[in-house]
Amino acid sequence: MSGNGPAGGSALADSGSRAFDLPQLSRVLYGPKALSQVSLEVERSSCRRVLLVTNPATYRRTDVPERLRDILGSALVGVFPEAGAHVPLATVEAATAMAKERGADLVVSVGGGSAVDCAKAVALCAPQETSASAALARHEVHGGDAAGHRPLPHIAVPTTLSAAEYTPTFTVTMPDGAKVMYHHPDITSRTVVLDSSVARNTPAWLWSATGARAVDHCVEWFLSRAHMPFTDALVVRALEMLWRSLPAVAENPDDLDARQEGQLAAWMSVFGSTNVLGGLSHAIGHQLGSHTGMLHGHTTCVILPHVLEFNAPAAQDRLARLAEVVGVRDGDGAHTAQAFVEGLRGLFRRLGLPSTISEATDSAVDVASIGDAVMTEIAIANNPREVTRDDVQAILEKALGA
Amino acid sequence: MSGNGPAGGSALADSGSRAFDLPQLSRVLYGPKALSQVSLEVERSSCRRVLLVTNPATYRRTDVPERLRDILGSALVGVFPEAGAHVPLATVEAATAMAKERGADLVVSVGGGSAVDCAKAVALCAPQETSASAALARHEVHGGDAAGHRPLPHIAVPTTLSAAEYTPTFTVTMPDGAKVMYHHPDITSRTVVLDSSVARNTPAWLWSATGARAVDHCVEWFLSRAHMPFTDALVVRALEMLWRSLPAVAENPDDLDARQEGQLAAWMSVFGSTNVLGGLSHAIGHQLGSHTGMLHGHTTCVILPHVLEFNAPAAQDRLARLAEVVGVRDGDGAHTAQAFVEGLRGLFRRLGLPSTISEATDSAVDVASIGDAVMTEIAIANNPREVTRDDVQAILEKALGA
Repeated sequence: MSGNGPAGGSALADSGSRAFDLPQLSRVLYGPKALSQVSLEVERSSCRRVLLVTNPATYRRTDVPERLRDILGSALVGVFPEAGAHVPLATVEAATAMAKERGADLVVSVGGGSAVDCAKAVALCAPQETSASAALARHEVHGGDAAGHRPLPHIAVPTTLSAAEYTPTFTVTMPDGAKVMYHHPDITSRTVVLDSSVARNTPAWLWSATGARAVDHCVEWFLSRAHMPFTDALVVRALEMLWRSLPAVAENPDDLDARQEGQLAAWMSVFGSTNVLGGLSHAIGHQLGSHTGMLHGHTTCVILPHVLEFNAPAAQDRLARLAEVVGVRDGDGAHTAQAFVEGLRGLFRRLGLPSTISEATDSAVDVASIGDAVMTEIAIANNPREVTRDDVQAILEKALGA
Repeated sequence: MSGNGPAGGSALADSGSRAFDLPQLSRVLYGPKALSQVSLEVERSSCRRVLLVTNPATYRRTDVPERLRDILGSALVGVFPEAGAHVPLATVEAATAMAKERGADLVVSVGGGSAVDCAKAVALCAPQETSASAALARHEVHGGDAAGHRPLPHIAVPTTLSAAEYTPTFTVTMPDGAKVMYHHPDITSRTVVLDSSVARNTPAWLWSATGARAVDHCVEWFLSRAHMPFTDALVVRALEMLWRSLPAVAENPDDLDARQEGQLAAWMSVFGSTNVLGGLSHAIGHQLGSHTGMLHGHTTCVILPHVLEFNAPAAQDRLARLAEVVGVRDGDGAHTAQAFVEGLRGLFRRLGLPSTISEATDSAVDVASIGDAVMTEIAIANNPREVTRDDVQAILEKALGA
């Protein structure tokens, strides 16, 4: 989930009311055999021609594509196995062309955030006559409503905790390296399949990194100025589940119960979050990721603890509540903001995740220009404490480490 | 929310997976001026002709219909003010005829569960050529999918905590007194407007009674055999909010913040609950209500504490967790199952609600025949403890009181 999505569009401050928009998700299937239900979901959508969009690792190193071939039979009309990291435009072009050529009427994605985003792009572009590039360019100008084509339905089988399948946005990397975000209410996956036997194939380091990002969602939505009870309830519980299940998976990658718990928690960490999102860790993480190519899970680990120390004066009670939820205490035995921050550092350490930017990347980090860019992120509007460029630079300096 | 809705259709036990279906709710508007946004919601639905369905008390004693006239202007093409208790078929007939005659393309309901259910019935029947009776009879036989007509969109402005607006079912009382429940996935309200200034008109006794029912939802879904983390998170928080806000409204009916908190809690108490629902209190409450005409809020008050004492051996930990959530302790200072049950009795007492069947109704109570009927309720399947007819009769005997 990127840091500059449509901002908590929820606060209709002038009108004295708020709008809470529910994601257009229809069903979540979960359990160790959930994958076997995909054919029923295809039928339920009245579709008959499925394009599978997946990444090279899933395609080459797991039996999931084979299993889907068995499950879908002749309804599987094509497999696009090159949905790689960062969603290069060329892959969207190729996958969309395949969808059109095979007459696909539904997309199934299997993979992490990039495979899901590629599938969303295909779902948006395939119903249009033009090339994917032209369709995206038109969408950029006219938005979702003007185009008039309904995206294909999309069933996501996520293999990480990125939670991209629950959001109405996706990001494509242009040939010049620019990352462009697109938004359409109907590209949220219709059905999400949380099958722990599929998730078992994901390496522990990737599980932990995407899980750290889910932790970041929980914490920043809970601290958001736009926080409200529905999302509060979900993210507090999701944080508790991640805190327990992430170390369990790191220790034993075959712990399918812990994988399942993490998957349910990732869902809960973002369900409805477009209404409350924002926060300085997401804003800095987004820009730091863009400038260095760092994984978002890694930007979270190196930035979030410093952001929480900065936010603590404006969020003592809420941080203390999180300390209580995950059961961490300070030296005096109290659930405090500081105890939560230290607990978080301990969690990331146990997961083997980096604690400084220097550990995470060799890229040069231009603190001044990242600081400027962060100040343009709308995500900072919902941060619990007012933020200046100097504050951002100070946080980045601390995060650089040695 | 009735006790014998479609059962937690979630457990696909054979397949080793579960399905969690999200209600097709699109937006919740909340705040003291949320009502003023209804015109924007009508536009967002691309509709132009609104039928207002409301009950006599709202129509005659509040300014809400007047305010909606101002807000909707010429888009308000009709007002049906006779949506009375128990949804008699004749009112559905009359309201549907008005909807057709005025060419309504959207229904706005203002009222409690009966007004919402009447509006759902109109939304289902109005697009069909036949009379409402014939449309309902056909629906009963062929179900939602065969008819092929999409229900009109429905915007609900609830005035109680019944939470009927979030469910895909409604109940109509036939001329012979039989209550028939209908189900259609597309009759869940598209938009729900939780305006505390509208809610202010609801008498405290009705607020408390419907709030008690919301408490019942929270407790029984949390104890359900089909419980799962997403609904657990929502109902635990909702229970906390109801525990605080219901007494506040009982004490000061003009406490709009407490009204709002109750409204948000009612939403959270049932969101997604079709996936976990069931429980002995709902099963007995449904039959006791049918046999005596008692309000469901009152059946909860007289039955739920006894049901929890019965269930305690099978649900000690979960009941103790609820005691912790609402902050009640036993004589030894511990959060226990018994402390929760006593706390619940105290809550209902503070709200001025009945504690025995004898207090709540003069109707004769045939323990044997209600006991038989309860055993046919599918809701008991998810009760945490196995239930026999003798168990049900014993609970009813205790609940009768003096």
